[in-house]
Parts: sequence; structure tokens; C-alpha cells
Amino acid sequence: MFSVTVRDHIMIAHSFSGEVFGPAQRLHGATFVVDATFRRPELDDDNIVVDIGRASEQLHTICGSLSYRNLDDDPEFKGVNTSTEFLAKVIADRLAVRAQAGELGPGAVGLTGISVTLHESHIAWASYERTL
Amino acid sequence: MFSVTVRDHIMIAHSFSGEVFGPAQRLHGATFVVDATFRRPELDDDNIVVDIGRASEQLHTICGSLSYRNLDDDPEFKGVNTSTEFLAKVIADRLAVRAQAGELGPGAVGLTGISVTLHESHIAWASYERTL
Amino acid sequence: MFSVTVRDHIMIAHSFSGEVFGPAQRLHGATFVVDATFRRPELDDDNIVVDIGRASEQLHTICGSLSYRNLDDDPEFKGVNTSTEFLAKVIADRLAVRAQAGELGPGAVGLTGISVTLHESHIAWASYERTL
Amino acid sequence: MFSVTVRDHIMIAHSFSGEVFGPAQRLHGATFVVDATFRRPELDDDNIVVDIGRASEQLHTICGSLSYRNLDDDPEFKGVNTSTEFLAKVIADRLAVRAQAGELGPGAVGLTGISVTLHESHIAWASYERTL
Amino acid sequence: MFSVTVRDHIMIAHSFSGEVFGPAQRLHGATFVVDATFRRPELDDDNIVVDIGRASEQLHTICGSLSYRNLDDDPEFKGVNTSTEFLAKVIADRLAVRAQAGELGPGAVGLTGISVTLHESHIAWASYERTL
Amino acid sequence: MFSVTVRDHIMIAHSFSGEVFGPAQRLHGATFVVDATFRRPELDDDNIVVDIGRASEQLHTICGSLSYRNLDDDPEFKGVNTSTEFLAKVIADRLAVRAQAGELGPGAVGLTGISVTLHESHIAWASYERTL
Repeated sequence: MFSVTVRDHIMIAHSFSGEVFGPAQRLHGATFVVDATFRRPELDDDNIVVDIGRASEQLHTICGSLSYRNLDDDPEFKGVNTSTEFLAKVIADRLAVRAQAGELGPGAVGLTGISVTLHESHIAWASYERTL
Repeated sequence: MFSVTVRDHIMIAHSFSGEVFGPAQRLHGATFVVDATFRRPELDDDNIVVDIGRASEQLHTICGSLSYRNLDDDPEFKGVNTSTEFLAKVIADRLAVRAQAGELGPGAVGLTGISVTLHESHIAWASYERTL
Repeated sequence: MFSVTVRDHIMIAHSFSGEVFGPAQRLHGATFVVDATFRRPELDDDNIVVDIGRASEQLHTICGSLSYRNLDDDPEFKGVNTSTEFLAKVIADRLAVRAQAGELGPGAVGLTGISVTLHESHIAWASYERTL
Repeated sequence: MFSVTVRDHIMIAHSFSGEVFGPAQRLHGATFVVDATFRRPELDDDNIVVDIGRASEQLHTICGSLSYRNLDDDPEFKGVNTSTEFLAKVIADRLAVRAQAGELGPGAVGLTGISVTLHESHIAWASYERTL
Repeated sequence: MFSVTVRDHIMIAHSFSGEVFGPAQRLHGATFVVDATFRRPELDDDNIVVDIGRASEQLHTICGSLSYRNLDDDPEFKGVNTSTEFLAKVIADRLAVRAQAGELGPGAVGLTGISVTLHESHIAWASYERTL
Repeated sequence: MFSVTVRDHIMIAHSFSGEVFGPAQRLHGATFVVDATFRRPELDDDNIVVDIGRASEQLHTICGSLSYRNLDDDPEFKGVNTSTEFLAKVIADRLAVRAQAGELGPGAVGLTGISVTLHESHIAWASYERTL
């Protein structure tokens, strides 16, 4: 199995609902360093997993739609705890939609999986992994 | 599949038995930077994998029971090579016991796997992965 | 010249005022990984720069007073752009006050400088360096 | 499942053929930081995954055979795009041959998998994973 | 003293002349992860060291003029060993020219120094530091 | 000012004397990732700071003389707390002796400073800086 990973980041504000979150129930924020991994069992005709230029651009566009925002104000996340693990899924799912829409180029039809890791600090990170 | 990882570290002395270990047969030591990963297929009602505060505390307690010690003197490791990969299993198994005892909170019943990685230097690390 | 550095982190929300900040004028947030460095020309009687336990505790207390907050709501930062470089100075100055008040232990009288670096992402960080 | 990883690196020149590569069609180069991971379900009699000294040496020899070269001039890679993901497979396969030839020592018969990750920059890396 | 650092990277081919370089006399290549640091004693009216957006753009433009090239073919480097330390100076000097030409914005008149670090692998890097 | 840094590591056991060290008074151990930096104001005739091959070898030899040992048993460190900051000085001074003895090659006469950083974990490191 082959994979290629590209890295970007977002800077957001948010708050959490639920006692389990302790002080993180207050409005605070985070930098999430975002690693998006694309997987496939065999390389394409160019000997690659994915067009890394397109993959980086698509990830950057998705990050741009989330970054420099208070996620509490985003209607899409109304009443939802935008935890690190949840946001990893949001980004992975958005990448999957774009891959399936051809935004990663024709070679991307061979992709079989995507995973996304969000690093919230030097001591904590979260991932979501899915098939395509 | 979702995962959350938290990081801590231990600083220990030990020695190894067996020619394969070369100079590491002498009493020496290591800092192990410890990454503990918790996995589950679906998020809990709070939209998280695990209470990260509790996960960090439990890992810190386990690390505290190992750190600032000569592992050669620990009766539990009598006659055992406390290799990096072995210690990864020790910490993963202790986390599993605590998870099953409810120390990670009620939401942790949904956890299906734990893995632990110990970084012994900038050029070597080892992991152990298990189900729950 | 000797130095010792300890690392901690804060997670905050804030916004900036001024066109130079572009989209960062919106309410957003950041994780700042905080490195605090203590300097002195000679080691103390214990052969150290500073009691690293106390240094870590003091940094953790200062980080705790800033973290999980919207800095826009902090009266101390009223009308101030809480840029990464500015926050590096805030933390360095608070550490200096604590060092001078004896919170780092009696050996800390020999400290001659403090610097603080805040990493806001994998591609940007800022520092402030001062004498003691 | 246990694993042990060792890190080395190569510095090479190469060029790519195909419009998908954009400016990387020109002769350029890369440092690849190489992580080689060895996996097995149970530890051997010495309580380890693999003789880490031998594993490091074998990886270093393989890296030495690739490094400080223009890969475009290597007959083995004639007409092939030596992408990061492709080179990860080259190194993994060469390690597999050496493991099967006994170069990792007698304990290595229990190895069941190898994976190799090549980091081409702080924002991109690729992996190849195979069984043994 | 305050500083802000931004990171980018280049991927180049080159060769060295001189026995001291050993196998690096052959045509090979490198990824250089480039950290550009801007220094000043006091913050500007916006409470920053430099417009980080402009600083990143200028560094990216300079990196773009060097990247995906064989430096041996660049007339500017004719007969010159493009060592890591030398390239750090090239980038620092180009940033200085742009700062002095106003490309970093009007606030940048207060900058007093620039340093550039190029990481050539996980085990080697080089820096050049200059005044402005 | 130019600098070049090379990285290596040591794995040692030791204990500390003095209440300030808390649990580190017990026999324990550490991995120290060692960064050795060489400085000079102008490059030599080969356009470099130092022969990086020789610098790496000399650092490796010095690390080898310390690693896989219990420093409490080393007569040179009798009655001395081998703190991270102290060991940074030990390594820097040994590098200085070798530089002055010509072990870094003839070009090294232009070196004006050496600094050494020892990383003891992901959250703590120490440095010593000296002239040559």
C-alpha cells in the first residue's frame, strides 16, 4: 500500500459544551496543523499516488474555508462540539468529496483511502481514517 | 476510524542481556517520549474519542510509576530485557487495564484499540498496538 | 553562557485590529507552543542554570492564566493587538517578575537573561529576549 | 503488533517526466529523510523486534547506494519517475531482500512486514507498506 | 529584542568542487527547509515585528527563484560552491534588499537584523545572520 | 556570522545529588540529542564553515566516549552533578580541544565559537556557548 501526505494548518476559535471539557468550555482557540494522507494499492501511470500540487491546493482551499474563524458562529457546526477528532473527519470528508468530483485529477480514481491528522499542540493530536 | 493521541515521557536507567545488544549491555539510560493513541470507530455523545484530560492523567500516572528509576531493580522486570518495544507494550497494557476499570470515564467503553509509541532518540522509535 | 529551556503551551482566541492583519482581524484562535529559556554565565552550586521543576511550574502557572480564554476579553489587553511577538514579551516579563520574587528558588539570583519563543504553527514563530 | 523504526537520509538529484509534475520536470533534487519500520506480532527471544544495530546498518548501506547521485543516470531507474512514493518502495523492497537473506540476523525470521516513509520536506512525505 | 520567523523550502540539485566534499562532489540534491528570522528592538504601531503575510510572500518568491533548479547551471553561482551556509547568506541578502526596497511594508523600516537557517536533513543545518 | 550544526545523541545513566533534583536523585537515565554548532564570521576557501564530515565524526567520537555508560562511575565526573547544561559544556569543550588540535581540518582555524545543545525530552533542553 502506498500513501502520500501533505501538511497545512488552520487557526480557529471555538468553545465546547459538556463538563468533560473543563476550561475548554470557555471560548478559546487552536492552531491545528493538518496532515492529509491519500492511499492507494498501486501507483498511477505517472508513478505517483496523487498529483501533490492539486492535493495541496485542495487541502489549502478547505483549510481556508475553516481558518481565521470562530467555529461557534458557523451554521454548519451549530450545536456541535468541533473537537479535534471531529474536525479531522470534516476535512477528510471534504477531501473525499473533492477527490470524487475529479478535483485531484483523473489519476485520483485509484485512491482507496484518506486519513487526516490534526495536531492541536506538541502533546496532543487526533486522526480520522476512511475509505474512498 | 477515529483516534486521539497524547504525549508524555519517562527517563530511566537499564541494561540489556544478550550479545545482540552490544554496548547497550552496560548500564545506561534513555528518555522515552511516549505517545499513547486511543481508537474507536465512532465518537461518543460529546463528539470525542476519549476524555483527553483523563487520558493524559492516566498516562502521566503510568509514566510516573516507571520514570526516574533503574528498571533493572524493578521486581516486575526481573530477568527481562526492557527494550523500547517491550516497554511500549507495558504502557499499552497498563492503559488498557485502566480503561477497562473506568479510569478514562464512562465514554471510554467505546474504545476498541490502544497503541503506544516510545521514541528513544531522533533516529529510533518502537510501537505496540493492541485491541481493547 | 549556559541556558535551560522548558516547553509548555496555551490555546487562546483573539482578533487583531489593523488592515495589515487581513483575515486575522476576525475572531480566530491559536495554539502557542511556549519555550522559555533561562540564561546565566556560570552554573550554580548544584551545577544547574535553574531548578527546572520550579521553572516548569512557574511557566505552567503563567500559561494557565492565559490559556482557554478569549484574550479580547482580558482587561489587561484592552485595545492591544495580542500578536505572537507581543505575547512572547508578556510571558517573558511575567517570568522575570517571578524570578526576581524568588519563585524560581534562591539559585536563580544568578540568572542574567530570559527569552520566550511562541510557535503559532509549523511555519511561523516569534521570540522576545530580555535581560534580568 | 510490535514495530521498530530507524531513521536515515539520502540526498539525490532527479527530474520527472509528465505535465503533472510542473516545475519538477526540471532537474532538481531532494533530501529524503527515510524511516524504515519493521513489524512482527510477537517479540523474539531477546525481547526485541529486530537487531536495531543491524537494521540501521542495512538501511544505511541501502541509503548509501542511492545518495549523492543523480537518479536520472542510474540504469535501474531508466525511464522511471523516481517519485517519493516509488523510492519508498525501492527501499522497502531492498530491505525485504536483505531481511530474507539473513542480513538482519537469525531473529528476523519472525518479521511480518516492512514499511518505509520518505519525508521530502516539512510539508510532504510518502510511504510504502508491504508484507514479508 | 523581538523576532519573527517564517518557514518555506526549496528543492535543488548541485555539486561541489573540492576534496573536502567527498561524495558530494557528484551531482546530487537537497531539500532545504528555510527559516527566515526578522529582528527589531521594539514593535511597530501594529504591535508586530513585520507584516507576516508580506514576509512569507517575499520569502516564497525568493525560494521560488531558487527551487526546482540545478544550481550548477545558474550563472549567478558560476564557480561557487553553493553550500548550505552560502545559500543561507544568499537568501538573507535577498530578503535584506527587499526589506530595504519597502517590499515588507512601511513598518519594516524598524527591522535591525535578518537571519536565515537552512535545514538540509534531520541531522544538519546552517545559518547566516546579518544586520539591516 | 555563519554557523553549521550537526546532530548526534547519547544514552546514559546517572543520578543527582541535592534536594533540588527531587526524584532525579535516584539512579535514572536519559537520551540526550546533541546539537553541536560551529561559528565563524567568514566562510573558508571551500565556501564552508567547517568540514561537515569531520565535524560529524568528531562529535560522534565524543558522544561514543560518553554513551551507553553510567556517568556516576566515570572518574572524570566524580562528585559532579552531570546535569544537561553541564554535559553541554563537557561536549563543547571537548570539541574545542579537537578543533584546536586540527582534528576538524586546516580550514577550521577560522572558527570563532562553538555551542552545544542537549535535548533531554520534547519539553526540556539546555545549551552552552563558548568562544574558540
